[in-house]
Amino acid sequence: MKAVVLVSGGMDSATLLFHVVKTLGYDEIYALSYEYGQKHNRELVSAAWQCAQLTEVIETKVLDISVYGEITAGASALTDENIKVPALDAISESDLDQPPTYVPNRNMVMLSLAAAFAESRDCDVIFYGAQAHDQYGYWDCTTEFVERINNVFTLNRKNKIRIEAPFAKMKKSDELKLGLDLGVDYSQTWSCYRGAEKACGECPTCIERLQAFKEAGITDPLEYE
Amino acid sequence: MKAVVLVSGGMDSATLLFHVVKTLGYDEIYALSYEYGQKHNRELVSAAWQCAQLTEVIETKVLDISVYGEITAGASALTDENIKVPALDAISESDLDQPPTYVPNRNMVMLSLAAAFAESRDCDVIFYGAQAHDQYGYWDCTTEFVERINNVFTLNRKNKIRIEAPFAKMKKSDELKLGLDLGVDYSQTWSCYRGAEKACGECPTCIERLQAFKEAGITDPLEYE
Repeated sequence: MKAVVLVSGGMDSATLLFHVVKTLGYDEIYALSYEYGQKHNRELVSAAWQCAQLTEVIETKVLDISVYGEITAGASALTDENIKVPALDAISESDLDQPPTYVPNRNMVMLSLAAAFAESRDCDVIFYGAQAHDQYGYWDCTTEFVERINNVFTLNRKNKIRIEAPFAKMKKSDELKLGLDLGVDYSQTWSCYRGAEKACGECPTCIERLQAFKEAGITDPLEYE
Repeated sequence: MKAVVLVSGGMDSATLLFHVVKTLGYDEIYALSYEYGQKHNRELVSAAWQCAQLTEVIETKVLDISVYGEITAGASALTDENIKVPALDAISESDLDQPPTYVPNRNMVMLSLAAAFAESRDCDVIFYGAQAHDQYGYWDCTTEFVERINNVFTLNRKNKIRIEAPFAKMKKSDELKLGLDLGVDYSQTWSCYRGAEKACGECPTCIERLQAFKEAGITDPLEYE
């Protein structure tokens, strides 16, 4: 059994990688990351660092899809230099279900490429770190999304790749505790969408991260502005 | 109403482009092509030629996703220099439902990126030239595939992009007659997967093309080996 794990470098995907490697017993594990023109591409340094801790990961690949960043610039604060990444509390109620930090159809683009990669290497499954707490704002992090993507893949006549998203129904604080048990070093993960020297502590992903640490009663090892 | 049309440069997509432009009355029409490391990337010259005939196409963009070709090399005769594009009659019965000319999950990759492009420009619909005659070998050209991709997109909370594939239930010879009525110049389309100087006349796509012309009682203007 062979698996692909999507590793962005954030806390969800780092935890996911350790969970797959240390708990699930796959024969071959591949890690995929994406350079898509994200402002916070320093997350890729964290992704590489996490993969390098695990000799079970037989291939770590960064797919350059910067053309994706080009075509979505203008439509997302993550790929457009002229759109500021807002603080979570500055996002209006009406925008909260698809905030400026949403990047058009990003997760389907990533999963489609991951499936092509998986199919080309006879992998069975793609692990995807969609997190329950992200579902307020990102339709492409929901369990329904994962189910419907899987519904597409079942049409494949030879290799029906399956997406698994084990954290899509898990509290982020519980995921954090799981990761600590597995030995994840969260000082080597990156979440902040602004991608500056220090994490901002106010963008949507920083807020979620800090809340998870607070709920778990643990201090986040990252430095904040 | 704004539309994106996927234009590969083959006869299906050239016909589709003319059909959308001349019949359907969209306010803005964008054409998308993909450079993915395909051996027959001379199809892109034809794609550009076709788009250039129609002033209604306000933007023609080639997305460079050669990384996709890299990750699927080894798994497809279209992206791997070491795998020969077979003649249709050399493909075994057991391989015919997913032949060597199938490229892993290609059409989902293309449609996902097209949706990102469409969403970023407030387009409503993506036109996709999936052809009924291709369904024998390519699960990602079927109407079920299109329906299930649309099922994913309906989860989007702001812009529910829709894929339309008007030729997915049409005989290729009927499509050809439609294209001739619309003024498509089929001498400026490219189908052959081998991508040599002249079309081979024996690979799966050449055979389908020649059959369509034969059924329609018309001579294919392309030169064959």
